[in-house]
Amino acid sequence: MASGILSAMHDCDVVVIGAGLAGLTAARELAGSGLDVQMLEARDRVGGRTLSEPIGEHPGDVAEVGGQWVGPTQHEVMALARELGIETFPTHAEGKNLLEDERGKLKRYSGTIPMLGPLVMADYGLAHLRLKRLIKRVSPEAPWETENAERLDEQTFATWIRRNARTATTRETFALACRAVFAVEPSEVSLLHILFYAAAAGGWDELLDTEGGAQQDRLAGGTQQLSIRMAAELGDRVRLSAPVRAIRTEDDGVAVGDLRARRAIVAVPPALAGRIDYDPPLTSARDQLTQRMPMGSVIKCIAVYEEPFWREDGLSGQALSLPGPAQVIFDNTAPNGSPMLLGFLEGRDARELALVPETERREAVLRGFQRLFGRRAARPVTFIEKNWASEPCSRGCYAGVLGPGGWTGFGRALREPVGRIHWAGTETATRWMGYMDGAIQSGKRAAAEVLRKEGAAVANAGGAQAAQAARVASG
Amino acid sequence: MASGILSAMHDCDVVVIGAGLAGLTAARELAGSGLDVQMLEARDRVGGRTLSEPIGEHPGDVAEVGGQWVGPTQHEVMALARELGIETFPTHAEGKNLLEDERGKLKRYSGTIPMLGPLVMADYGLAHLRLKRLIKRVSPEAPWETENAERLDEQTFATWIRRNARTATTRETFALACRAVFAVEPSEVSLLHILFYAAAAGGWDELLDTEGGAQQDRLAGGTQQLSIRMAAELGDRVRLSAPVRAIRTEDDGVAVGDLRARRAIVAVPPALAGRIDYDPPLTSARDQLTQRMPMGSVIKCIAVYEEPFWREDGLSGQALSLPGPAQVIFDNTAPNGSPMLLGFLEGRDARELALVPETERREAVLRGFQRLFGRRAARPVTFIEKNWASEPCSRGCYAGVLGPGGWTGFGRALREPVGRIHWAGTETATRWMGYMDGAIQSGKRAAAEVLRKEGAAVANAGGAQAAQAARVASG
Repeated sequence: MASGILSAMHDCDVVVIGAGLAGLTAARELAGSGLDVQMLEARDRVGGRTLSEPIGEHPGDVAEVGGQWVGPTQHEVMALARELGIETFPTHAEGKNLLEDERGKLKRYSGTIPMLGPLVMADYGLAHLRLKRLIKRVSPEAPWETENAERLDEQTFATWIRRNARTATTRETFALACRAVFAVEPSEVSLLHILFYAAAAGGWDELLDTEGGAQQDRLAGGTQQLSIRMAAELGDRVRLSAPVRAIRTEDDGVAVGDLRARRAIVAVPPALAGRIDYDPPLTSARDQLTQRMPMGSVIKCIAVYEEPFWREDGLSGQALSLPGPAQVIFDNTAPNGSPMLLGFLEGRDARELALVPETERREAVLRGFQRLFGRRAARPVTFIEKNWASEPCSRGCYAGVLGPGGWTGFGRALREPVGRIHWAGTETATRWMGYMDGAIQSGKRAAAEVLRKEGAAVANAGGAQAAQAARVASG
Repeated sequence: MASGILSAMHDCDVVVIGAGLAGLTAARELAGSGLDVQMLEARDRVGGRTLSEPIGEHPGDVAEVGGQWVGPTQHEVMALARELGIETFPTHAEGKNLLEDERGKLKRYSGTIPMLGPLVMADYGLAHLRLKRLIKRVSPEAPWETENAERLDEQTFATWIRRNARTATTRETFALACRAVFAVEPSEVSLLHILFYAAAAGGWDELLDTEGGAQQDRLAGGTQQLSIRMAAELGDRVRLSAPVRAIRTEDDGVAVGDLRARRAIVAVPPALAGRIDYDPPLTSARDQLTQRMPMGSVIKCIAVYEEPFWREDGLSGQALSLPGPAQVIFDNTAPNGSPMLLGFLEGRDARELALVPETERREAVLRGFQRLFGRRAARPVTFIEKNWASEPCSRGCYAGVLGPGGWTGFGRALREPVGRIHWAGTETATRWMGYMDGAIQSGKRAAAEVLRKEGAAVANAGGAQAAQAARVASG
């Protein structure tokens, strides 16, 4: 193990916990600045909530069982993909989308939201406008400083929906959007969190849209490539299957397992960061925050077929199904990849179906696909599912969610370092929180915090930096 | 270490994690039924969220820095106290109570709630009546089965207050009650949780009242005596300073540290139970519940004086202060004990004042006491404070609280055993959840679950039981 350039007492300068996009970005930034970094990852793989499982025979033919989309205003992830030589391709959207209404009737439509009749459209339009106005008032850097923050944070999104939507269809549309974006029920999330999250993404529509929004593009070979390539650059700095149970802060550094470093970056969701045993114990503000930012509930279901037969019928494969249980469906076929449909079980649906045997869950999802796309949909070649809430190193997706009272009562503790411990992870982002983009931003921000603190020390450490920087650059 | 009576492969029959009232009760029940029990307690003391700190020179002169009150319908704790030979005495309530209103004006009153003018009383009375009607609809055994459960669980108590209270004073009265009972803001807690909690206590007034309610009586020598005496009976079955980081379930038992047992009872709050590393990992339903039941925020502040000088002025020492920061104040003097005033910092007030230095917090509390009781209140002999959110083995008080969507989405996982692991702790109680009484009920229920499972085995184990039972009975 390399000895730290700043002190002979340390094994390295910075230890980064968690080799998802946030942690890897932080480590890469720090290594690029000449610091000696070590990463500890509990899993036997890198990538965190991104996971691209190889299927079929072509290299790069993968099933995206984790985070998969990138959008045009997600500048961090787009830049990283370019830098790493990973190409993007558009989400398949040719053809008509399908809506299955409450009574099981199918309608074809184009765009993000189907036409729902003039009464519903007027109702939805007005509520949508009110929501967009509220979003504009929120600063993603400090949601607790929003005018009337306490009023916005004392109510659930469900309460807001009930007050602002007159028709059942509008209410169910917002609920479906809440499940699709947050993987929780509207009852679980603070209105202020909804507003913050949309503000951090540039708007409500940006969250929901395919073209021009968060679902516009995908990455060739899968999003996990971002992490795999960064980890390859970092080489033996990344230690896999190395779960961190405890962090001890000492006078001049931190001890994490057998590693001693000057500082630590914890790059896992707050709900999991709270499970680490800290010595001395974390402040009450920080600990109680970690008790209040639970992960969403999602089971991603992918059915692989011989042919993308729905395209023959003029269908895009995109669908919204109010009866569900998969309420949001996409054609997830990559260029030259295996044809596949992707269905999301989210919030309530994920929780209910997590309790039944796998075959029953599969059948429930495929029955839904069959209602939308016909009998061939019931007979996939392969069916892949991933319940992210069952993963001990994630315990839910897409991200941690703040319930009512969370931002105003505890939000200030979200990014605030505790002594020598810094916090990264998409939950700490101010742009595109909950997305890969936010994870990358958070990694850069945490690295910058560390560099500001260690800057003087680094400046004194002389030539060692240049050698390190060169090593990183050469991969 | 004794070998288990049921299997030579185990060190004991049951390992109980957490030596608070729930765990000790469970261990006592099991030992009394002839099972071989071992207890692991992370702290160097028993009693969990009860802690009676000796002060002054008389034995039994204690400052109750944890749970301290018992009420007349709390049959479990009253019976346990009697059984252990611990006497009760009434909470000091002679004299007039004080209300300090928003503008700092003092009024004297009697009873739980001050007279607040006819408009406010009519407003409060109507809202109070509506709340009581809702409470009657909820079954504490299964709040999720309440008629319209989803509607009641999709809103915060803050939303309900805003809809049902017309005057600012009524709203602030409910908010103060919420802080006093739950140590959280009305924004953080689901209306359904409020209803459940009151139903489990027998009603809303039962939660708030001194005479006839949850604050009626206290225990001579301090509530921690309940745990200390149970632990003395259990003898070397109780291991202190033995934190549990991991529980592994095997084919025929569980492994906890160096102990192997047939079953485990985890008797710590869900928020802390979720931090244990389980192998195999817990189900997603159980894990996600533990992410959604945060602990309240309370700093208990006790000022000890030479004399109970407020009594000379005809005051009871009980006060409600809207300006705070301690909004609820009691004379906490025991018969023949040191004179003392007790002030609670709860919810918002606990969080804000946790961030300032101890001297500043003390001064803020004493300034409040001085406004109520005069200049002598500013000069205590001793000032004791306890921030329960800073305690690594509690991380908040009085109990775990479910936010909106919690009961309907995750409540079924609260008591449901996961394989060989059973759950106790006041959060799992159906009567007086959040109180010592609920903790005891939960310990009995968990022990009964284990006995049902192991009953047949015990029946076959023969005479060993009688010897064990005799040993326990003799203390």
